[in-house]
Amino acid sequence: MNNYAETRIGILGAGGYTGRELARLLDRHPRARIAWATSESDAGKALGDVIPGVDGPALVRADDADLAGADCVVSCLPHGDSARWMERARAAGARAIDLSADLRVPDADTPAWARGAVYGLPELHRARIAGAELVANPGCYPTAALVALAPLIRRGLIAGPVIVNAASGVTGAGRAPRRELLFAEIAEGFSAYAVGNVHRHLAEMRAQAAGLADGAAPELVFTPHLLPVKRGILETIYVTLAEPLDDPRRLWADDYAGEPFVRVTAEGRMPALADVVGSNRVAVGVAAIQDVSVPMLTIVSVIDNLLKGAAGQAVQNLNLMFGWGETEGLA
Amino acid sequence: MNNYAETRIGILGAGGYTGRELARLLDRHPRARIAWATSESDAGKALGDVIPGVDGPALVRADDADLAGADCVVSCLPHGDSARWMERARAAGARAIDLSADLRVPDADTPAWARGAVYGLPELHRARIAGAELVANPGCYPTAALVALAPLIRRGLIAGPVIVNAASGVTGAGRAPRRELLFAEIAEGFSAYAVGNVHRHLAEMRAQAAGLADGAAPELVFTPHLLPVKRGILETIYVTLAEPLDDPRRLWADDYAGEPFVRVTAEGRMPALADVVGSNRVAVGVAAIQDVSVPMLTIVSVIDNLLKGAAGQAVQNLNLMFGWGETEGLA
Amino acid sequence: MNNYAETRIGILGAGGYTGRELARLLDRHPRARIAWATSESDAGKALGDVIPGVDGPALVRADDADLAGADCVVSCLPHGDSARWMERARAAGARAIDLSADLRVPDADTPAWARGAVYGLPELHRARIAGAELVANPGCYPTAALVALAPLIRRGLIAGPVIVNAASGVTGAGRAPRRELLFAEIAEGFSAYAVGNVHRHLAEMRAQAAGLADGAAPELVFTPHLLPVKRGILETIYVTLAEPLDDPRRLWADDYAGEPFVRVTAEGRMPALADVVGSNRVAVGVAAIQDVSVPMLTIVSVIDNLLKGAAGQAVQNLNLMFGWGETEGLA
Amino acid sequence: MNNYAETRIGILGAGGYTGRELARLLDRHPRARIAWATSESDAGKALGDVIPGVDGPALVRADDADLAGADCVVSCLPHGDSARWMERARAAGARAIDLSADLRVPDADTPAWARGAVYGLPELHRARIAGAELVANPGCYPTAALVALAPLIRRGLIAGPVIVNAASGVTGAGRAPRRELLFAEIAEGFSAYAVGNVHRHLAEMRAQAAGLADGAAPELVFTPHLLPVKRGILETIYVTLAEPLDDPRRLWADDYAGEPFVRVTAEGRMPALADVVGSNRVAVGVAAIQDVSVPMLTIVSVIDNLLKGAAGQAVQNLNLMFGWGETEGLA
Repeated sequence: MNNYAETRIGILGAGGYTGRELARLLDRHPRARIAWATSESDAGKALGDVIPGVDGPALVRADDADLAGADCVVSCLPHGDSARWMERARAAGARAIDLSADLRVPDADTPAWARGAVYGLPELHRARIAGAELVANPGCYPTAALVALAPLIRRGLIAGPVIVNAASGVTGAGRAPRRELLFAEIAEGFSAYAVGNVHRHLAEMRAQAAGLADGAAPELVFTPHLLPVKRGILETIYVTLAEPLDDPRRLWADDYAGEPFVRVTAEGRMPALADVVGSNRVAVGVAAIQDVSVPMLTIVSVIDNLLKGAAGQAVQNLNLMFGWGETEGLA
Repeated sequence: MNNYAETRIGILGAGGYTGRELARLLDRHPRARIAWATSESDAGKALGDVIPGVDGPALVRADDADLAGADCVVSCLPHGDSARWMERARAAGARAIDLSADLRVPDADTPAWARGAVYGLPELHRARIAGAELVANPGCYPTAALVALAPLIRRGLIAGPVIVNAASGVTGAGRAPRRELLFAEIAEGFSAYAVGNVHRHLAEMRAQAAGLADGAAPELVFTPHLLPVKRGILETIYVTLAEPLDDPRRLWADDYAGEPFVRVTAEGRMPALADVVGSNRVAVGVAAIQDVSVPMLTIVSVIDNLLKGAAGQAVQNLNLMFGWGETEGLA
Repeated sequence: MNNYAETRIGILGAGGYTGRELARLLDRHPRARIAWATSESDAGKALGDVIPGVDGPALVRADDADLAGADCVVSCLPHGDSARWMERARAAGARAIDLSADLRVPDADTPAWARGAVYGLPELHRARIAGAELVANPGCYPTAALVALAPLIRRGLIAGPVIVNAASGVTGAGRAPRRELLFAEIAEGFSAYAVGNVHRHLAEMRAQAAGLADGAAPELVFTPHLLPVKRGILETIYVTLAEPLDDPRRLWADDYAGEPFVRVTAEGRMPALADVVGSNRVAVGVAAIQDVSVPMLTIVSVIDNLLKGAAGQAVQNLNLMFGWGETEGLA
Repeated sequence: MNNYAETRIGILGAGGYTGRELARLLDRHPRARIAWATSESDAGKALGDVIPGVDGPALVRADDADLAGADCVVSCLPHGDSARWMERARAAGARAIDLSADLRVPDADTPAWARGAVYGLPELHRARIAGAELVANPGCYPTAALVALAPLIRRGLIAGPVIVNAASGVTGAGRAPRRELLFAEIAEGFSAYAVGNVHRHLAEMRAQAAGLADGAAPELVFTPHLLPVKRGILETIYVTLAEPLDDPRRLWADDYAGEPFVRVTAEGRMPALADVVGSNRVAVGVAAIQDVSVPMLTIVSVIDNLLKGAAGQAVQNLNLMFGWGETEGLA
């Protein structure tokens, strides 16, 4: 479909929900082309037989992927498995984007090849992404939380722990068959998990918040929930302010004035999943909390977990890395 | 079906979700009998044609209801409309249970006939309900919140505002046709509403919390959300403690040890909608929040909004008012 | 809960959707008591921890089940695995009900112990079930189809192939984790399967239809579909009549006049899932087809696949086998 | 977004599900531009506030629409209301596409201005659409049925009545608030409607089938059902053949070989909603029916009711009418 597209993209792990979404985006991208895509279980099948409506080469096993034949390798492999493939891709000379959590929080054990990985949240790190060879694509929950909180964190306006109450559609839990993800278990249901501040995404949120705070970052309390929907994340965030704000909404409006994918809702209106599902947008709404003795805000932040929370943000990063228009191939 | 049942119940407003659920419960109740049931739009139809599987007399308009011919009149009418019917039922000599919000928060304007209304949350006010002539059946959100918070409020253990992040199935919004409640609007969606502490249920929660606190009640922050499920409420509650607790779960286990409808989940397990939908139970789980500098708890509380949050609790109150077994006719 | 209940029931395979539903029914049954229940994966756990709201003994592995300690053993084990357990239960002296397909269609290979199995569709075989030691509980699709078609088959009124277009909720596919049953695959989806008349239930339908026809049974064309709902089956059946009928609905009204669980809908009204889900009812509606040159009928037949299509019908059979009221413990 | 696009499109009735979908498609179309869009209830609001992610002018009331300022007026108004607006649009000199049923089945009462309306199913009438000034966009059910049946009808291969058993997502029922379309009524439900061959779409199907048959068209039996999904139609069609066919699938493969939007599934595989929702595709699968004494086929045909069944097909027609690539702006 995109014969004139020259940049060759390899997709590692195209069979999961994120990989399929990425393939759909790249299939319609005006400047990129799927050079190859891997799936251990569907190797040998045509891409279009596995992902309806997508043209492209037959799927191959990861071991058979032509890493050097891609200008950029994008990994949708699971956490723990992804890093070694990213290392190989880099060694083969390809630029790389990792959608797993493996490279997002560098620490003392991070090997040399991975140390330069840029955290791929364009609204926070656009300039560094532009020149990056290796990008760690953010987690879905952190993306929604960091865009929502950055205006307050940067200004040092937060006092006391921040409550991030989050709810995600089930594609966030992956496509491997598990009983608790069956339709008959999820439909008409709703549940919290990782209650008590024990979710893996906390380290990622804390590291980024600390970077923004330039010192004392706010404490975070994070509770994810599982929604009976396919896709979408909504986070309801409660913040105690260090001082009252006359017009809190203006902070977000100012900070995100030129952002192509951030929408700050009108005064008095809160965003819902329907405002963003199917798009790469983040929508954020802010309201002062009435009738409490300390100044508090509620912030509602929504994204499509498969797009701005994964594959869409990866394409946004790809656009920046290769110097294309940031919105190309994205809605 | 229940020929031997002698106590005659009248249902005002049997066509909505709450009224239908109440009719289903009473149809199978061993001691109660539906004497009459009203519906303005379905008057004249057999009860079983409107509510599949329920036997009973043809529906009548409220104006034609034989108020004096009921031992107890239960109102499922909308807020604002219900109080005047409760007044008539009391004047006709019937005992009464009001499922609307009209009588829940007495104030200086409350007329004399309504002043004796007992707030019908048996886990807090069982003794007073037993002798009551008039019961104000609690709201669905307050029921889940108050059962969850009572052990802390009673003991004066709460410091600072409590965050009550709540999500409800759509039957909580009623059965009147509104565009925003259409399947195509709700399915695959999720949204917050009344953001910023402006929901009507706050006054009810605050009044009850004050009663429990015997003075200084905690401040409350309450955000409801609309879930794409038919029924069920899950509240995720964040509390800052006045002092650390060694074994927080024990407070709930102790306070609710003999309660027939309260389940405190095992250590490390949180309740979900599936634990309570279709039953009159409240299920509560508690977890300490890790990695914050102040002692904090997360409490998860779940109910079926149509049962423990409405019709089931009304039957529980009915059982208490008439001296029957508290669990009769309830699962 | 049912201390006075004396009849001891053993459940083989209580962890699947059918087994769980059966446990819920028996927990509330006035004359039966769960003596034991098996689950290979949940052995050792309390029944109430696995099935919310159900009291009963801890689950055991099937090998540890006290077959002789049950008055009746009910198997919810998978097809292929069930028969050998039924044989053991019979050898241990227990009466038995098999919910699998293993015993439904006897043939030349059926062993002696299984030859007396009665096909447990009370609306067709009530008298034989009453004295039965071994009952083969019908499949969900055949139950809905046979109740719908019996009035025509018995009278020899069908000409040409009958089209049975059926749709089922996903609990019919079992609780084992399979990718194609994940929420994210099923929600917002709909699909046909076993297209071209190749579904296993056809043999069962044909055998029963032949028995009713006393000779020349009608040909059947059967296409099942998978609905994005948890439970419920709706079959839309197209029949060409051997001769026009003046008042077709009367056939069903006459044949099922005394049936406690069959509802024939009013003229001009068709049943829907909501009429039966949660109950043991079958609801059937009939309409003549306009504007075709041969006399044709459409019949719509609905059941709850887990109740009248499985566990509810098993309890109905149990009631008949033990001489109790046919509707005891059933709604 | 599309500054270089010159062709001005007016949308009548942009607030319903079809109108919103059309606005989304035109917003991204490379050659068309939304000149104006009407909504009686949302007039005055920005298009993007009513349809997330869509740029365009503020909505106006239909009476204020600049009919003459559009190169093509597309009506998404309800049946009965649409025709008079189409007449005005034509009188104002605009070409026009009508998505309502008003112009699809011309008869003796059809006024002169409407007589030239071309039935806009490109797979059947591509050449005539190319030059058309006025197009009657097909109904959703007829689109899926006619694409499925045309290969058999054209060849005169059908004997006896054809059964079209169809199921549609709820957006097909429109966006006006009605109790029976509330989430709490539709979720976990399924129902047939217009049973007995009385649906309005039958006349449209019969008229087109007669045109294809060049004389004796097959009789049709059509039963629609309401699915608990937002969008998508699946039709399961049963045909008795005049003679056996060796390789039935080849008829569809041959007839639709060059069609950009028709997919004939591989032998042994049937299409499901997930294959087409979100796209303008029709997917068709065919299987011979085993074990019946006459030659019969089952055909499964699926579309997205809002795209190939409405707005997508309208854009396909627009592309043909204006001589653009048939797939432009469509996925």
